[in-house]
Amino acid sequence: MTFTDAERAAMRRALALAATPGVPLGPNPRVGCVLLAPDGEEVAEGFHRGAGSPHAEVDALREAGEAARGTTAVVTLEPCNHTGRTGPCAEALLAAGVRRVVFAQPDTNPAAAGGAETLRAAGVEVEGGLLADEARALNRSWTFAVEHGRPFVTWKFATTLDGRSAAADGTSRWVSGRAARLDTHRLRGLCDTMLVGTGTVEVDDPALTVRDETDQPLPRQPLRAVMGLRDLDPGRRVLDGSAETVLLRTRDPHEALATLFARDRQHVFLEGGPTLAASFLAAGLVDEVVAYVAPMLLGAGRSAVGDLGITTIADARHLHLVSAAVVGSGADANVRLTLRPSVEPDATTTPEES
Amino acid sequence: MTFTDAERAAMRRALALAATPGVPLGPNPRVGCVLLAPDGEEVAEGFHRGAGSPHAEVDALREAGEAARGTTAVVTLEPCNHTGRTGPCAEALLAAGVRRVVFAQPDTNPAAAGGAETLRAAGVEVEGGLLADEARALNRSWTFAVEHGRPFVTWKFATTLDGRSAAADGTSRWVSGRAARLDTHRLRGLCDTMLVGTGTVEVDDPALTVRDETDQPLPRQPLRAVMGLRDLDPGRRVLDGSAETVLLRTRDPHEALATLFARDRQHVFLEGGPTLAASFLAAGLVDEVVAYVAPMLLGAGRSAVGDLGITTIADARHLHLVSAAVVGSGADANVRLTLRPSVEPDATTTPEES
Ligand SMILES: NC(=O)c1ccc[n+]([C@@H]2O[C@H](COP(=O)([O-])OP(=O)(O)OC[C@H]3O[C@@H](n4cnc5c(N)ncnc54)[C@H](OP(=O)(O)O)[C@@H]3O)[C@@H](O)[C@H]2O)c1
Ligand SMILES: NC(=O)c1ccc[n+]([C@@H]2O[C@H](COP(=O)([O-])OP(=O)(O)OC[C@H]3O[C@@H](n4cnc5c(N)ncnc54)[C@H](OP(=O)(O)O)[C@@H]3O)[C@@H](O)[C@H]2O)c1
Repeated sequence: MTFTDAERAAMRRALALAATPGVPLGPNPRVGCVLLAPDGEEVAEGFHRGAGSPHAEVDALREAGEAARGTTAVVTLEPCNHTGRTGPCAEALLAAGVRRVVFAQPDTNPAAAGGAETLRAAGVEVEGGLLADEARALNRSWTFAVEHGRPFVTWKFATTLDGRSAAADGTSRWVSGRAARLDTHRLRGLCDTMLVGTGTVEVDDPALTVRDETDQPLPRQPLRAVMGLRDLDPGRRVLDGSAETVLLRTRDPHEALATLFARDRQHVFLEGGPTLAASFLAAGLVDEVVAYVAPMLLGAGRSAVGDLGITTIADARHLHLVSAAVVGSGADANVRLTLRPSVEPDATTTPEES
Repeated sequence: MTFTDAERAAMRRALALAATPGVPLGPNPRVGCVLLAPDGEEVAEGFHRGAGSPHAEVDALREAGEAARGTTAVVTLEPCNHTGRTGPCAEALLAAGVRRVVFAQPDTNPAAAGGAETLRAAGVEVEGGLLADEARALNRSWTFAVEHGRPFVTWKFATTLDGRSAAADGTSRWVSGRAARLDTHRLRGLCDTMLVGTGTVEVDDPALTVRDETDQPLPRQPLRAVMGLRDLDPGRRVLDGSAETVLLRTRDPHEALATLFARDRQHVFLEGGPTLAASFLAAGLVDEVVAYVAPMLLGAGRSAVGDLGITTIADARHLHLVSAAVVGSGADANVRLTLRPSVEPDATTTPEES
């Protein structure tokens, strides 16, 4: 693979375009594109503004018009090959007379893959892999979901220093500090789906919305998903219509994730309870653990983590510590630990912020 | 209180002298002294080299000889008034003809207090409080013990992320990582006493020595203390003579600390087990908590913290988070949390390094 300095610079610009603030998070990857004249001068640029709007290549081709002929298209993702709401980008690039295509990350999404092939077959020079890591980082959840055929799963739980989620009488308001609860809402807002079991809905009746400092719901709400076989009391807050809700009538974590993936979900925020979390852990379907540890001792009460079927220390489930951070200050300080399974599905493609 | 610039500079020098590396940690405070001529020139300096050796003032007076007459003694601790192994410093300063005494921290130790009074009564100008906080910081454990009439207590425990100290079958080697275990030895070495209950001795048979990276015992070993009424099996390692051991035949934490205080102990490292820790917590006799959290889940097993008699969340024992640090790296990384009781006995006088 050989790339010119102008192509390298154009790819940096395309990555910046892709990351334009204000592009709504959605199921589509963020993509940027720059068209270069043979002398390396920029002819046009474009980026994708979210589902339903033109892909980055088409956006740039429109700006260029006739000037697109003979250019090199520098694009952060392999041009798509499928006809979605916008038509395949590979065809559009051919029709515009683009001479060469340089892309960063290959598109392994089965519905879209093959753009490079189509272009090459039509005589266009195609090279991939330029700044591919940066491009993957830009769309971590999307990349993970496409590569694994399921959403990335972040399991979050709250615990006292001695591993309790509630006191002996069941009271648990509040184990976590206020800053930790706000931080949880921030993390919820980075995911596209929140998942709980029917048990948590019955006992806690959570709203499962993302709210700000003043407890007001944000305009964009992740999908609310409830997993389990039983019927829910229709008065539950999760059914109040304030955000979309899906009932996953299964106890099989694989099936639940497949359903969510089919709905274009890429990042699930699993908030419990212990039964559901244990079943995802047992199935190897937890990709990240976020634990809020409160500086508090109870000495008794409900365990924060349910039975995992482990009886001896050699079978303990080891996690890899990614970070330890203090959230909040003074009497409100909690510790947020972020961990990954020791055998990571793919260490480089896991979301942090998406 | 008015101090000259020369006195302020001399006090900084005296603090540095007191902290001379290599002075063995012992029951005595570290003290430094500088003698100043009336024009502010330094005449002599001294420091205390540990129990049995001259006090800092006497050390400086010896160096000065006749030149001590008419000087100002700048000393980090109020000169003592008692006759220990070395004779009272107040008397020595009077005999040497010192004109003025400036000290940092008052000596509230009943056996030694009153030096300033004695000096004033004999016509010497005495002023205290110059850089007092720095002087207190220099001897945190000593200061705490003198002011509270008991040793400072650090309770250390090791836990999984879900609050377990052992798996369901009792196995616990190893919950903590290697770096965390080494860090524990470092903290043991900063204390003068390690304390466990008879239960831990019976079950774990710990050596309770401070060892280095190669598992070799260090030359200076803290006192090993075992608390409880039952007789110990004479084959236990804590009775092997490799370090001094005291059997505290009581279940009363106040009584145990009084006995240790009478033996000049200033900083107890309480290493469990859960029964003993719970009784110290209940008695309000834990001044610092050090928790090593291992990135590991067990889901079941022995709780790291024993019953505290708490049944509802409102009665949870809140701690103040002082620091969160990662100890070790990669698969060996653990999190060390340092916490203090929310109502601190004295926030400014607690040991960190002593
Ligand atoms: N500490 C924390 O961070 C935290 C977070 C959330 C909840 N909680 C607490 O957890 C408690 C609820 O516990 P929970 O364990 O009942 O809640 P849960 O895990 O939310 O719900 C368990 C229920 O989900 C259904 N289910 C779905 N998938 C399942 C599977 N793979 N295996 C087994 N059952 C499955 C079952 O009900 P069906 O019969 O409907 O199938 C099961 O009874 C509440 O008291 C809540 O306060 C704590
Ligand atoms: N996770 C950790 O960091 C950690 C640390 C240490 C130990 N452990 C584990 O703890 C287990 C031992 O538990 P344990 O609770 O029996 O140990 P323990 O607290 O060391 O010993 C308890 C015994 O100490 C005596 N005792 C002294 N003061 C007492 C008081 N105030 N109240 C009640 N009893 C008092 C009693 O025996 P008498 O009849 O002799 O009075 C009592 O049975 C071991 O398996 C060990 O592995 C864990």
